[in-house]
Amino acid sequence: MHELTPETITDAVLDQMATTSDPRLKEIMACAVKHLHEFAREVKLTPAEWIKGIAFMTAVGKICTPARQEFILLSDTLGLSALVNGLHDSTAMEEGTHTSLLGPFYREASPNLAAGSQIAKTVKPGTELVLYGRVTDVNGKPISNATVSIWQTGASGLYDIQESAASIDYRGVFTTDANGLYQLRSVRPIGYSIPMDGPVGEMVRAQKRHGMRPAHIHFLVGAPGYRELVTALYLRDDPHLQDDVVFGSSGDLAVDINPRDAESPIPNLPTIRFDMRLSRETAADKAGGRVGADPSAILKQPA
Amino acid sequence: MHELTPETITDAVLDQMATTSDPRLKEIMACAVKHLHEFAREVKLTPAEWIKGIAFMTAVGKICTPARQEFILLSDTLGLSALVNGLHDSTAMEEGTHTSLLGPFYREASPNLAAGSQIAKTVKPGTELVLYGRVTDVNGKPISNATVSIWQTGASGLYDIQESAASIDYRGVFTTDANGLYQLRSVRPIGYSIPMDGPVGEMVRAQKRHGMRPAHIHFLVGAPGYRELVTALYLRDDPHLQDDVVFGSSGDLAVDINPRDAESPIPNLPTIRFDMRLSRETAADKAGGRVGADPSAILKQPA
Repeated sequence: MHELTPETITDAVLDQMATTSDPRLKEIMACAVKHLHEFAREVKLTPAEWIKGIAFMTAVGKICTPARQEFILLSDTLGLSALVNGLHDSTAMEEGTHTSLLGPFYREASPNLAAGSQIAKTVKPGTELVLYGRVTDVNGKPISNATVSIWQTGASGLYDIQESAASIDYRGVFTTDANGLYQLRSVRPIGYSIPMDGPVGEMVRAQKRHGMRPAHIHFLVGAPGYRELVTALYLRDDPHLQDDVVFGSSGDLAVDINPRDAESPIPNLPTIRFDMRLSRETAADKAGGRVGADPSAILKQPA
Repeated sequence: MHELTPETITDAVLDQMATTSDPRLKEIMACAVKHLHEFAREVKLTPAEWIKGIAFMTAVGKICTPARQEFILLSDTLGLSALVNGLHDSTAMEEGTHTSLLGPFYREASPNLAAGSQIAKTVKPGTELVLYGRVTDVNGKPISNATVSIWQTGASGLYDIQESAASIDYRGVFTTDANGLYQLRSVRPIGYSIPMDGPVGEMVRAQKRHGMRPAHIHFLVGAPGYRELVTALYLRDDPHLQDDVVFGSSGDLAVDINPRDAESPIPNLPTIRFDMRLSRETAADKAGGRVGADPSAILKQPA
């Protein structure tokens, strides 16, 4: 029998996992073990550090509830979620608008609204703006009847669910017209901090990161024959555009607020224009499901 | 602002973590992020697979209680615990007996017993054996007054705590004599399965692994001036010696049961002889704390 040493242990583990029947699970776990071990060898992980890591992962798990998904937050703050989105984009048939984080605040139960509607129930003076844009294919051909679901924070920097569980506000579902145009009124979104009262917040503080997301508006766009797009626009003038704590903001998704926009479909208000290009859908896209996870679907039972 | 892509995201994350004040935390997290990202890129992790991973980690966390540490079990079954032990051994001043898993069943409250005592309260006929050996330094010089704590399963394959929370059985603390000798009576230990009713069990089943540990006896040995040793002996004739599900069994820790041992300090019983060599202790050893974790210390609060 061979002796298990830091040099031989990885092969011993891979040998024992070689019987895995699902080839994809086998591939993923083999690669995970190789990198996990290489990590431990590279940093020469000590027993005391290992215990700290176990305690950290346990704390991340224990704080999860249907309303709070700390493992997704950990994935977000380590850039894994953004990386998975980028890898998803690279499998598209065509290069459309890039994916950004779905986040924990998407809700199926959003109201269908008529073009031009104001999605915020109360609008503070000076914060109202027009949000519009065209949904097209990658060649700029308009896609009509696309479903454009939008959600964002209100003027307080909170989503409706955070203000009160029953509230539905700052969100709505619109349909593009014959020119691929969607248009609505909204309020200026506010950047906000991720939840800092859990183990991920503790990690972010220890790393001297600010924990802030730049101001953004979420989009989920679908049209028959096209790959569903989960993305967001980011306000270019936000001080945290460059260092979003969850790495969702990317140069290609940054937009400006235009104080005087001659092309606006709704006059006399500042505008944000955000056009989106959809890739044609493949069979794999159909089978793959939505990008990003609904926390409540991952853990139905409360802690 | 740069665009975040699968190629640029890792540097963006490392940049953001560069402000970490503790240099060791910075080093560990940078290496963890590099390997986490490289893993995702290598397997081209899809959004659906990412969600499965999040759900798995969450389930591992949720099942943890002070009495059950599923993240340690995950670390064990992925060979990480054994690797950390091996790395620990490689930092010793001298090459002593190798470390093996502490496991979840060590208890501070073990009885101090006189040399030769039987540690099992009831002994089935034909299972009794003598366990003895010498504790020495790496050059074979006897270490007297070393504390040798021993714990194992009974004839049912269960530890005392698993049979009943209040029970103390199949365990004891001995002291070496002037020749470094410890000696006791025990029963033949039985191999057993890790807990298979949680997410780690599900993983092990999907990998078509048997989930068994080979029969073993745990040791925790301490003596002033020497590095504390957490190890175990493994029965060489156990069918799972080669494929311990937690990678604790290693060729150098395998022993035979000797049916007629002329050197036995206690005659007329089969014996297991297990000698152990301790490395001299360094200042870092003193500061490093115990190898392996007490689950109840990691999570004091019940789920």
